[in-house]
Amino acid sequence: MSIVSIMSTKNQIEDYLNDNLPAADSPPAELHEAMRYAVIGGGKRLRPILAIAACEAVGGTLETVLPAAAAIELIHSYSLIHDDLPCMDDDDLRHGQPTTHKKFGEATALLAGDALLTLAFEWAAKLKNSEIIKVIARAAGNQGMVGGQIADLSATGNTPSAEQLEFIHSHKTADLITAAVVVGGLAGEGSPAQISKLRKFGQNLGLAFQFVDDILDCTSEAQTLGKTPGKDMASDKVTAVAVYGLEGAKVLAKKYIDEAKKILADETWKSNELLSIANFILNRKY
Amino acid sequence: MSIVSIMSTKNQIEDYLNDNLPAADSPPAELHEAMRYAVIGGGKRLRPILAIAACEAVGGTLETVLPAAAAIELIHSYSLIHDDLPCMDDDDLRHGQPTTHKKFGEATALLAGDALLTLAFEWAAKLKNSEIIKVIARAAGNQGMVGGQIADLSATGNTPSAEQLEFIHSHKTADLITAAVVVGGLAGEGSPAQISKLRKFGQNLGLAFQFVDDILDCTSEAQTLGKTPGKDMASDKVTAVAVYGLEGAKVLAKKYIDEAKKILADETWKSNELLSIANFILNRKY
Repeated sequence: MSIVSIMSTKNQIEDYLNDNLPAADSPPAELHEAMRYAVIGGGKRLRPILAIAACEAVGGTLETVLPAAAAIELIHSYSLIHDDLPCMDDDDLRHGQPTTHKKFGEATALLAGDALLTLAFEWAAKLKNSEIIKVIARAAGNQGMVGGQIADLSATGNTPSAEQLEFIHSHKTADLITAAVVVGGLAGEGSPAQISKLRKFGQNLGLAFQFVDDILDCTSEAQTLGKTPGKDMASDKVTAVAVYGLEGAKVLAKKYIDEAKKILADETWKSNELLSIANFILNRKY
Repeated sequence: MSIVSIMSTKNQIEDYLNDNLPAADSPPAELHEAMRYAVIGGGKRLRPILAIAACEAVGGTLETVLPAAAAIELIHSYSLIHDDLPCMDDDDLRHGQPTTHKKFGEATALLAGDALLTLAFEWAAKLKNSEIIKVIARAAGNQGMVGGQIADLSATGNTPSAEQLEFIHSHKTADLITAAVVVGGLAGEGSPAQISKLRKFGQNLGLAFQFVDDILDCTSEAQTLGKTPGKDMASDKVTAVAVYGLEGAKVLAKKYIDEAKKILADETWKSNELLSIANFILNRKY
């Protein structure tokens, strides 16, 4: 995916979100404002871009997958709102702006998260494919993102192990990224062999993504990162840097990306765009 | 639906929930324990019973609709967990037991709610009917239950009006009850005319249900009710009793039930069980 092509895809995702989220002046306006604030505020749109790239890689079109791709972005946004709440990570800054509960209060932020998660399934249902609903729900739920989230919380303060780290990273982060790639493959009617390759690609990509996140938490400044850096280390989180050290984490992040690229390298279908995204994930600064 | 038949249906719902919720000893165990605690703890199972009765009324079987009926119960359970949180209604007692956050802490309760909402869509997807996913998501989301919830919160303390009350009751309560009935009709492959009747029946039933809830909040004791009574009045909530007085609310609850029964009265399909449930809702003590 060239830079121009990624920018164009990102614009179409932004347009879909903007056009399909409830209008900020429609009742209940406070809820709708908070939903839009959390989603429209920023973000790399990595998950929907991946879903679209995977769909196109197996021969589908952007239009086929767009509602489900945007649905996955809603789930990512809801998870950030809930994750930032005082009873969770208690964060004040996200995408360079006050977090949703800082801006709208805790009750509205909680409900805006609930509403975004619910709306995600309404959007995903537009593809009329029950398998896609199942893939998204599994990746986001107790055996996926939410499961990783609670493991992340309960691991805080303990001596971190590599196994614990992998459980947390796999579920908290890699599962939803993997789901984005798999949903793209399913929407584009990829073969079972293609879906299987995409799944393994997504898992390695997702693990690399969280390694880079942990590295940036130690090395970046708030202005670039858009959120409070150093917070994971300060709160004794189980991070890649805590387990492997900064240099060790960098080596492993590259290893996961190399592994991801290797999975698709010999395929004859057009996966160049997925490979470009893999490079972006390794080299990103925010 | 005879008492025996309702009890048998309720047992099958309990079995489905028990068998399909994640095992309490499977990791992440803390999350799974909290999910089971919130769902298995108690409840009338009104929404899944309604979905099954509606499905059978149009000629379908219990098995056809059971996963979606149970999914709607998960959504009801998640809404109670989040509703009871300190930043919302801050309640200590539910189904005669400590609320989920009192038992497991706020972070785990929040995540258990998120996981139940997500799992609901995985279960509902088993019916392989995108229309059913859409009906459930709309009823539970920003234009449904969550929308009613935020209106309920922001209305607290103001002078209540009948219009405000109807908006809150329709969305906070009646939308999900209506969805249960409609999902039953759709799963049982009811005709568009039947679905339309079921929708109107559900709306009236749902409004009656919330009127009776408001009445019981004023007249019941904690032991019977299983939650803290008098709390809505004490916190200046917009309730049917606040708007119409206790006797006025009783008259209107009966009116909604009469209206619901009238909608199905002349139908030739076997809606007797739905009519029995309508009577139960008016006369319930908890």
